[in-house]
Amino acid sequence: MKLALQLARSAQGQTSPNPVVGAVVVKDGRIVGTGAHLKAGGPHAEVHAIREAGDRAEGADIYVTLEPCSHHGRTPPCANLIIESGIKRVFIACQDPNPLVGGKGIERLKQAGIDVHLGMGESEALELNKHFFHFIRTGTPYVTLKSAVTLDGRTASSSGDSKWITTEQSRLDVHYDRHRHDAILVGVNTIIQDNPHLTTRLPQGGKNPIRLIVDTHLRTPIHSHIIQDRQSPTILITGCEVPEARKQAYIQEGCEILSLSGPTITMKELVAELGKKSLVSVYVEGGSSIHGSFLQEEAFQELILYMAPKLLGGRDSFPSFGGDGFPSIAEGILVEIKSVETIGKDMKITAVPQERKED
Amino acid sequence: MKLALQLARSAQGQTSPNPVVGAVVVKDGRIVGTGAHLKAGGPHAEVHAIREAGDRAEGADIYVTLEPCSHHGRTPPCANLIIESGIKRVFIACQDPNPLVGGKGIERLKQAGIDVHLGMGESEALELNKHFFHFIRTGTPYVTLKSAVTLDGRTASSSGDSKWITTEQSRLDVHYDRHRHDAILVGVNTIIQDNPHLTTRLPQGGKNPIRLIVDTHLRTPIHSHIIQDRQSPTILITGCEVPEARKQAYIQEGCEILSLSGPTITMKELVAELGKKSLVSVYVEGGSSIHGSFLQEEAFQELILYMAPKLLGGRDSFPSFGGDGFPSIAEGILVEIKSVETIGKDMKITAVPQERKED
Repeated sequence: MKLALQLARSAQGQTSPNPVVGAVVVKDGRIVGTGAHLKAGGPHAEVHAIREAGDRAEGADIYVTLEPCSHHGRTPPCANLIIESGIKRVFIACQDPNPLVGGKGIERLKQAGIDVHLGMGESEALELNKHFFHFIRTGTPYVTLKSAVTLDGRTASSSGDSKWITTEQSRLDVHYDRHRHDAILVGVNTIIQDNPHLTTRLPQGGKNPIRLIVDTHLRTPIHSHIIQDRQSPTILITGCEVPEARKQAYIQEGCEILSLSGPTITMKELVAELGKKSLVSVYVEGGSSIHGSFLQEEAFQELILYMAPKLLGGRDSFPSFGGDGFPSIAEGILVEIKSVETIGKDMKITAVPQERKED
Repeated sequence: MKLALQLARSAQGQTSPNPVVGAVVVKDGRIVGTGAHLKAGGPHAEVHAIREAGDRAEGADIYVTLEPCSHHGRTPPCANLIIESGIKRVFIACQDPNPLVGGKGIERLKQAGIDVHLGMGESEALELNKHFFHFIRTGTPYVTLKSAVTLDGRTASSSGDSKWITTEQSRLDVHYDRHRHDAILVGVNTIIQDNPHLTTRLPQGGKNPIRLIVDTHLRTPIHSHIIQDRQSPTILITGCEVPEARKQAYIQEGCEILSLSGPTITMKELVAELGKKSLVSVYVEGGSSIHGSFLQEEAFQELILYMAPKLLGGRDSFPSFGGDGFPSIAEGILVEIKSVETIGKDMKITAVPQERKED
């Protein structure tokens, strides 16, 4: 199962809107087939592994990180394939989270007389597909807020300077997360101030996320890199008061304009709209006021803080979460710290909102 | 030496302005005497240990956490006592930091034909007496800044609410540090807002620190606990523009007024004045603007952050370090993270300014 989970992990970032899945076929204590789901529309992990096993699948065990499907989608049901292959035992890390189909694959396998074991490596399997599972349950993308801060929680000086808070190693880590998310989201002020590309730059390459710019009044400069570089789709998210004529220049440059219903943008409406576009995961890089909005509306699933060993100070320097904030400590959002890691000289703190706050 | 260090540690908070010292006499592999310096003016650690050993000191080894003194102070020189006791080997963790006497105790022992070993357990011994060593080197107290913050670095909401950011366990930990410091320092706004006692409240009791209130314009309410409770001396630190007549009411209540030279207070002048009063260590509990001043003037030796798993947000909530702050990231103060601990649900992060910034 460990190998199956590793196979699944290796495909992170390239299967959306599908989950990552790994499968390993074992016969008489030897691995006879391995597979991962590599690309939406491509064969499932079980297909690769069973094909590789060939005749040796007869009487073998299969370890798979997610319940095999039982329905005809873009590919035939894997449950049927397992039954036909002659496999005798199936180890499944976790059940399909889709309430309409969850458990049906297991049911079909059992009916065919196959010995099914559920739950081996479950927590890791759930973590691997947390984006997908959240999306299936809620119809909205899994939102990860990322912020680079000083030890005293500042993300920019009062003049707006933010280069560079963290080390190159932390910034490389960020590019892995860009690769793993369907979309990256920033506010228009970040575009105006930094003119970033918002692409994935890893030594071994990587997938560029779709670029989402929260731009209520459509102020993105038309010559910005994100409009001109054509490296990935760009969607500009505006309020309802932007005249249609002004949108044309952006549309001609190949951008999409997503206009929400109100004069100001609510994150709740935004994530609902992004869900309709089948965006499974969104990586929010700020700045301060964008993070503040996601916090205030409790519209996020995870927070990643890269904390540098520096002190900036200042009543007017920028906090990682701007906006109004909560009026008292008691009303603040409780989070659970999932991990504290060291990346070079920086600390990486990962936290999730506590249960009562989760949707 | 481990036992000697533990003996020294047990006396932390009760020997100022002297260092903590532990000593252990060992004869033929058996401990025959132990001692700690327990109180300024009382016998040194070596005296206790050698007295306990009695005749068995003849030909024994002594382990001592700090170089034995060679001068006549309030007690006779320990180097002489060691020589007279017949001890043959002396293990010393670290040398006396006082440039006038450092090394002289070792010299005298060697001249008497005693075998002297320096450096065993040195880093721990330096850490144990970091307050004292800093004071001896600079003539100013070791300043520890303490702040309780949310994960996003906020110390109070925009309305000033700060109760309670951290858990009871973290607040208990703070009382240990109050015990270990000569003085506690806060700004007058903390007195006006919270009316605290600023005493040490530990299950087993503890020493109350002297209370220092930075109060430029002498606004401390006369009925505050720190003026009325008589639990520990209170020193009000003002600028130069407070009329003498106004100070009388506070002096009549038993407070001391320390008026600095300028209309506003600089932390550099303040720590110099506190050094003249033989205060070896100051524990600064904020608030935001006091911490900001210590940061801006780089007038601190250590930072302890208690970080709660909460998010507060808000452009106008209070940061741990207020004031002007540094204008750019590059100008910020680099720190070295010494430790990250878990206290209940909170994180305790201890950091020191990096070398180039240290005095």
